[in-house]
Amino acid sequence: MKIYDSSMAPNPRRVRMFLAEKGIEVPYEPVDIGKADNRKPPFLAKNPLGGLPVLELDDGTCIAESVAICRYFEELQPEPPLFGTDAQDRARVEMWNRRMEFEIFQTIAQTFRMTHDFFKGRIPQVPEFGAVCRETAKKRLAWLDEELAGRAFIAGDRYSIADITALTGIDFGRITDIRIAPDQKNLTRWHEAVSARPSAKA
Amino acid sequence: MKIYDSSMAPNPRRVRMFLAEKGIEVPYEPVDIGKADNRKPPFLAKNPLGGLPVLELDDGTCIAESVAICRYFEELQPEPPLFGTDAQDRARVEMWNRRMEFEIFQTIAQTFRMTHDFFKGRIPQVPEFGAVCRETAKKRLAWLDEELAGRAFIAGDRYSIADITALTGIDFGRITDIRIAPDQKNLTRWHEAVSARPSAKA
Repeated sequence: MKIYDSSMAPNPRRVRMFLAEKGIEVPYEPVDIGKADNRKPPFLAKNPLGGLPVLELDDGTCIAESVAICRYFEELQPEPPLFGTDAQDRARVEMWNRRMEFEIFQTIAQTFRMTHDFFKGRIPQVPEFGAVCRETAKKRLAWLDEELAGRAFIAGDRYSIADITALTGIDFGRITDIRIAPDQKNLTRWHEAVSARPSAKA
Repeated sequence: MKIYDSSMAPNPRRVRMFLAEKGIEVPYEPVDIGKADNRKPPFLAKNPLGGLPVLELDDGTCIAESVAICRYFEELQPEPPLFGTDAQDRARVEMWNRRMEFEIFQTIAQTFRMTHDFFKGRIPQVPEFGAVCRETAKKRLAWLDEELAGRAFIAGDRYSIADITALTGIDFGRITDIRIAPDQKNLTRWHEAVSARPSAKA
């Protein structure tokens, strides 16, 4: 198997971090998104939507969508559990991972898509909507700071895929100057802790 | 346990359909989103983001996010499997459910949010972005029609949560006049088949 990867985009980092936490090694094949190679026919046969990363299995089956890839490896190697430990815990992790995706990762990624020069001429940009997303992202970081007052990690006392989603989203915010505010002490403490893990360098 | 519900919004319908397919009965408590009751303190203690549905367990634990709720019931009662049957199948279902969420459900929901009078004064509306979402939704329906040429259901030969996500998204498109085109024969055939299941009335 191998994973089609990009060092520029936040979604591939989610999978690299997940595999680093699991201690699983999979060969990566870089795809040049700067040249839009992910939007051209050879790659579109693997993922018609053009997104990265994509996991290609030995039989040629391609699995796209970061969380689908992560869940596949969670099943192959359950330890350490990054999707929760029982029915209720798995539901909580799913809830928090989705909140991090929709409220943090996507609002930040959408700010980038709507306002950054990288996407100029690639997609229809609506800067006014980018400004709305920027404000939403800032509000959500303030909310997340409050949520983290009572616990070590996003979904509870255990590191999970929700931390990976939040970290990759928040770190991607730097490029559009969306950052954790200095007075967001809980979020700062969490960010330092998860950034210190070896997986953060993946 | 009970589920905080709304008959107006598409996400609660996803959970109702899922439970109908499972044959699981859970009491529903309606929340009036027309009066924004989901954005007021009594409900915000259950879900600080205000979204519906929310599953409240007997110990008071609240699980938000439709797919987190569905996954919880999948664990409690695995049959019939709606998230796939083994590691690779579950990855495929996850991939397709996410594609349906991001490419179909969300583009249609965002068109509604950005352009419909319901959200006037409730959120910052950017009609220009709504128009972009509308065009994207139409392209994605055309793509999905092609994808369905070779199989009965969204994720393969078996009905899954991906069909529920696609149906609730597509049906919600009527309110903004986003519809399956008459020449989209595969999508039309699929829509008729899944709409004929008793769960579609949930």
